[in-house]
This record gives sequence, structure tokens and C-alpha cells, in this order.
Amino acid sequence: MSIKIGILGYGNLSRGVESAIKQNDDLELAAVFTRRDPASVQIKTAGVPVVAEKDILDWKDKIDVLVMGGGSATDLPVQTPKYAEYFNVIDSFDTHARIAEHFANVDAAAKKGGKVAVISVGWDPGMFSLLRMVSDAVLPEGKHYTFWGRGVSQGHSDAIRRIEGVKDARQYTVPIESAVEEVRSGSNPEFTARQMHLRDCYVVAEEGADKARIEKEIKEMPNYFADYDTTVHFISEEELKRDHAGLPHGGFVIRSGVTGNDKEHKHIIEYNLKLDSNPEFTGSVLAAYARAAYRLSKEGSNGCKTVFDIAPAYLSAKSAEELRGHLL
Amino acid sequence: MSIKIGILGYGNLSRGVESAIKQNDDLELAAVFTRRDPASVQIKTAGVPVVAEKDILDWKDKIDVLVMGGGSATDLPVQTPKYAEYFNVIDSFDTHARIAEHFANVDAAAKKGGKVAVISVGWDPGMFSLLRMVSDAVLPEGKHYTFWGRGVSQGHSDAIRRIEGVKDARQYTVPIESAVEEVRSGSNPEFTARQMHLRDCYVVAEEGADKARIEKEIKEMPNYFADYDTTVHFISEEELKRDHAGLPHGGFVIRSGVTGNDKEHKHIIEYNLKLDSNPEFTGSVLAAYARAAYRLSKEGSNGCKTVFDIAPAYLSAKSAEELRGHLL
Repeated sequence: MSIKIGILGYGNLSRGVESAIKQNDDLELAAVFTRRDPASVQIKTAGVPVVAEKDILDWKDKIDVLVMGGGSATDLPVQTPKYAEYFNVIDSFDTHARIAEHFANVDAAAKKGGKVAVISVGWDPGMFSLLRMVSDAVLPEGKHYTFWGRGVSQGHSDAIRRIEGVKDARQYTVPIESAVEEVRSGSNPEFTARQMHLRDCYVVAEEGADKARIEKEIKEMPNYFADYDTTVHFISEEELKRDHAGLPHGGFVIRSGVTGNDKEHKHIIEYNLKLDSNPEFTGSVLAAYARAAYRLSKEGSNGCKTVFDIAPAYLSAKSAEELRGHLL
Repeated sequence: MSIKIGILGYGNLSRGVESAIKQNDDLELAAVFTRRDPASVQIKTAGVPVVAEKDILDWKDKIDVLVMGGGSATDLPVQTPKYAEYFNVIDSFDTHARIAEHFANVDAAAKKGGKVAVISVGWDPGMFSLLRMVSDAVLPEGKHYTFWGRGVSQGHSDAIRRIEGVKDARQYTVPIESAVEEVRSGSNPEFTARQMHLRDCYVVAEEGADKARIEKEIKEMPNYFADYDTTVHFISEEELKRDHAGLPHGGFVIRSGVTGNDKEHKHIIEYNLKLDSNPEFTGSVLAAYARAAYRLSKEGSNGCKTVFDIAPAYLSAKSAEELRGHLL
């Protein structure tokens, strides 16, 4: 019997979860829930209902895990605690500064309902967190570095789109190669934000817009661009569609540490992702953790968890014997 | 109160565990057990007793976790099941073909004694297994590749030393760069052993030994060298000591997989280790899993486990709040 998955929302990430479910025989898409008119949402999996979010509690006993497809800014802080009381849930909450608060809210709801919730699943937070944490435990004397890119930052692209006179935009986050090489050498450098990443922007301006003003507004935007060396390229809408349609991303976590009686030996651990599709990879991680949440719930576990709290074997469709036989 | 660790044996790996314990405030070396005359063994930690292995059961209630420092060929298949009944134990058993048998033996003993045993801990098996397994769960349609090196293989160095006329030897396993690049491109190639690794040997011959015969014996040795392109360099004992005294190692696991409705997106996950000291890094991993075994045992768990069965948070000295606050 397969694990019945519901997905809340139907944006890029939800579609990534939907296609990941197809790659896992033990997972089954049971329903997609939407705030929109369900009749207006066409999903890719035949025979699966699209249901109005207001009717979601009717599905309480019909789905095993609810995957939250929403964003961290406004959706997840509300939705995950709201539904964790009724469903085992997985989210990709990635506002690092608010994780403690989100964890507490979701934990209270999940415990009240006797459900399992897993928050902050994906690649960062998620796979990168796992690597940072395990590497920190194995090499306690050291430093870790996280580089993102080269890849499309949807948050930064959105920020550019909000500028007057901008029709569309794509922002690439680019790690600075010399900084990466310095880290790989084991020298444990200290960096400012500007020394680790560049920001590379492709902008379609409205006809007649003041490009010099747009470029200035981008480069001076606090938090998003002011602390980085930023390049702005104005291109046509056709060029954007032709050359920048994908959502590739990636990055790497490097732990650099020492061992030995005189700390004389250096060690470098590097975990590197190169992703053609950020939402599909993130969706694949969410699908694996949905499996884990279902199993933990079956075992009687409840409350909020992160990737740190879940034994790796729970993620896999394979048996313990298969895992030991082929992957150990 | 710190976790009291015993170490069985005092070779390279045990010394790596000893120095790792010093880097972790919550771990304490309680005793080293040896088959040799304890008076002949000088350890690096002041005030810690060296005890004859025959008296080890006197320490049943004085140590929390026993770390096995022995080898997989003859020590661990006997020692780990023998002591898992009396102690929480950690070993680095790495004979992949015999893991099922070893797991069953250790599991029976640990369950009999109500103890926790963790086998096959280190970097391969160990960290590499974790990466292979998690990556396989996240990208179920794909292939994984493991490359080792450039680094000293102690098993291969020993095999050369057993040849008549060889005084000392060091064998480096070297990944073939063109194969690595092919894998990183996402083309999912099929390789023979010869296409993935080279073997590079530095040999000190006895005076008057027949070097041509030694070279031939190395290159034709089944399992170890016959299936690889092998280079043999004869060097002096001084050169060996000067240039090849360290035990560096490393390698990488690459998972190459696809996602998407038409499997149109490629993803590459790479985990890369560059280790100045193989035994010290392995010892550091064993130390982190010793912490986990102690905690699992305190919770009432028992039986044999591998890295797949242990939630990452158990490895860290940091609290759940700290981990979520700083590493998620």
C-alpha cells in the first residue's frame, strides 16, 4: 500500500513534489489543495483531484502526509502550524532567523494533534544543514562555509521585478572562485558577504524606462544587493525567455578542520550540488522526508522535527538489508 | 559528566580516536586495552591506564563505550561480537562482502547484553555510505560512483610488503581525472575498475633483490593490482621516510540523477573528502558515533546499528536548540 501524499498549493515547488512522487513507487499523489478556484488548476497527474483549501479537513483521514508548497515569507508561518494539528506535514521553511519561532509553533500544533511535522526540508536548509551538522560533529575544531550558485535566486529576481520600469528579471548568485579556492586550501579565511558571492542580473526594462535609474536602484538595494558586487545586463524579453528560462541552482558546503595531538593535520569536507532544476530537486527531498514522516508517525512519534532528528534509513524506500548490502 | 571511552588496541586508528577524544570536552579516555604487555605500551594521554585485554571485563561498569581499534580481516569479526554483549561498542568493519554476517553476529550479542553496537563507522564505510544512501533516497533514478584517493591504501601497501625482497612500500590509489569529469558531466558512464583508478607504488627493495621480479609480482597480483594500471617506483628507504611518511587519503562519492516529468533535468551531488590523516579522520568519526551510542543506550535502545539508523543530532555535543540555531 502506498503512502498517500497531499500537496498544498501548486507553484514551482509543488510541481517538483508532484514529479518526484512519480519517481517513487511507494508514494502516491492523493490530492492537490489550492486557494484558487480548483477548476482553474490543471495538474500533471491524471485522475488526482484538485480540492479547495477550505475543504482540506475533509481529507484528514484520506492522506498520510501533507506537503506544504507555499513560501516562507507569508504562507508557511501560518499554514504549517495550522495544519500540523491535523496532518503529518513537511515544509521547506527557509527564513533562518525565524526557525526557532516556527519550530515552537509547529511543535505545539503537531503534539496537540499527535502528528509528525518536519520543517525546513530541501537543500538549504535541508541537505546542506545535514552536511554542516554532521561535519561539525566529526571535525569539532574548524569552520564551515556555504557558497550558493551559480544559480537563480527567486527572491532576488522578485526584488528586481518590484522596481518601477522593470518588466521581468533573473538574478544569478555566483560564488567567487578565488574565495572558494582559499577555503579549499584549508586556510580558514574570514570573509565579508562581498568577498564570497557576486550578483549577476538580467533585466527586461519597460519601453522608455530609465535604465540608469533602474541599475542604480538595483545596486543600492539594501540586504539584497548593496553588500555585493552586482552586474546589471539589460536584455530583451526574447533573450530572457531563450537564455534564462530554467531554474538551475546549486552550491556547496565546505568544512575545514584540524585533528592530531598538535592539530597538525588538515581535513576538508566538501558537499557540492549542481541542480538543473531547483524546485524539482527540493521537491525530491520533500518527497523523501514525507516517507520518513509517515513511518515515524506509524511508529507513534509526534511533534516537530528537522533533518537533524531523523535517521537516514527512514528516507529510503529500500529495506535495511538492501541498504546495508548495497549502499553501506 | 563526560562519556567514558575505552579503546581496544593501540595502532594508528586507536591513536586517531585518542586524539579525537581530546577535541571533544564531553568525551574522556578511560582506558586503553591491549593484547601486548601493558607496560610496553606508551599512550599519549597522561594518567590513563593501559590494561591487559584479558582484564577488560573488570571495566564493564567503568566505561560507557568501547571503541574497537582492530582490523577487519581478523580482529573485528571476533572482537566486536565478543564484546558487544558487555559494552556499547563502535567498530570500523569495512569488508563489504561480509557486513551482513558481521551485523547478524554483533546484533545477537548486543541484544543479549542489552547494549548498543554501531558497526562499519568511518568514512568508507561511514560518511560515504551516508551520502550514497541519502542521495539514493533523494534521487532514486540515477547512479552513484565512489572514487578513492589520491591516498595511501594500507591494505595494498601491506600486500606489496609481503613480496619477497621488499623492505617497505607505500601504495597510492589515484582516481582517473577523465573518469571523474565524465561522471560530473552527468553522462552516467559504465566503468571497469581499471577505468576509475590507477595504482601508484613506491617500493624499497632489499639490497640485491630482483627488482624486475618484484615489479612483475606487484603488477600481476590478483584482486589487488592485476585489474589496474599500476606504476612501480623503486626508491631508497630515506626517500620513503622523507616523502611518504604521512597517511593522507580521501575520495568522493558522486550521485548523478534525473528529475522531471520527462526526466529532463540532471542533478549532481558530490561529497568530497581531502584528509591529511586517514586514521585521525576515521578516529574522529568513531568518536562522534561513540557519543551517539552512549545516548542511544541511555534511551534504552539496543542491538546493532549502522550510520543509516542513527539520527544525525545524536552525533553532536551541541543541543537541539544550538543545532537549529546555527547549523540548520
